[in-house]
Amino acid sequence: MQRAEYPAVLQELVAQLRRMPGVGPRSAERMALWMIAGRNARPAEIAAAIAAVAEAVKPCPQCGFFATGPLCEICADDARRRDLLCVVERATDILPLERTGAFAGLYHALGGRISPLDHVGPEELRIDALLARVRSEAFVEVILALGADVEGEATANYIAGLLRESGVHVTRIAQGLPAGGGLEHADELTLSRALSGRVKI
Amino acid sequence: MQRAEYPAVLQELVAQLRRMPGVGPRSAERMALWMIAGRNARPAEIAAAIAAVAEAVKPCPQCGFFATGPLCEICADDARRRDLLCVVERATDILPLERTGAFAGLYHALGGRISPLDHVGPEELRIDALLARVRSEAFVEVILALGADVEGEATANYIAGLLRESGVHVTRIAQGLPAGGGLEHADELTLSRALSGRVKI
Repeated sequence: MQRAEYPAVLQELVAQLRRMPGVGPRSAERMALWMIAGRNARPAEIAAAIAAVAEAVKPCPQCGFFATGPLCEICADDARRRDLLCVVERATDILPLERTGAFAGLYHALGGRISPLDHVGPEELRIDALLARVRSEAFVEVILALGADVEGEATANYIAGLLRESGVHVTRIAQGLPAGGGLEHADELTLSRALSGRVKI
Repeated sequence: MQRAEYPAVLQELVAQLRRMPGVGPRSAERMALWMIAGRNARPAEIAAAIAAVAEAVKPCPQCGFFATGPLCEICADDARRRDLLCVVERATDILPLERTGAFAGLYHALGGRISPLDHVGPEELRIDALLARVRSEAFVEVILALGADVEGEATANYIAGLLRESGVHVTRIAQGLPAGGGLEHADELTLSRALSGRVKI
């Protein structure tokens, strides 16, 4: 006699689910068993949703956001300001900015940031495409909304250098105390940046 | 201008992934974005694995374990003892027992346990099917491998009562100290059951 195991097709599903971020062997097994035996699991609907996304969603060729047509919703929106460009590291950084309601221009996702330790140089990023857009479109200001860490700073400085001759205003988003944060919780670097970035009231 | 949102097909995927056990809104969004933008995500493979399982895996009509044929691997294995039957609450309890290598008979999954608080009575479980198997097959012993909690105990007692007239030996798996557990970590009920279940050495 052989010790029983899960059917091969079920073992394959566990292996596939484990590839997803944040899913370990236990939770992959739990999800897979739920798909077979769970009340109202309807796994075919999940499979269809994954397949539809894989088929329909592509990076916008202009800005890198998620698009289901030739351009994404943002680039295709005639009501947006076409003289403001906000540069972000990843396409996933765009929605948090959108949700603020504080920006009405266009975006450009670099696809990452310069990080020699991870073997990511400027040529791996969509920096050439950014320069081409700045040359061909009528931006007055380019806002660098990159991370406030070493790699984000280095990437911002590198891009600012490249844009110096272009005549466009290059700004970066402010660093300082997070909303609701007291001074006693802020680290030295945050406080020093909040000080040097002080504004008149 | 409209604040941008994820494409509808992506929002639908996030909603579908959230239905899985242990997946909250944040991790569903993280998985969905990984499927679009992750390196080597190959979401079509995941969709295919889910669809294949949903299509191919059914409960074994005899024992309730996962089957891809007319019977599951265990019921179809001629090398197993056909005079021993092990009753478990759920199909997912079978593999942990198999992995012990200590049991070579057949199984019967009830599909749950009697639990009035959850509105689960005997008629919701596969108890009639169990009685039919005991009548028509040649079992010498029926081992009740149910949980050591109130509902598991009640279900075991209920089934033992039904089988009393059948002439088959009805046993239940032992309760006592878990392997590697010292007395100082055992609760009173575990200790009292370990005492009353003592065996000669």
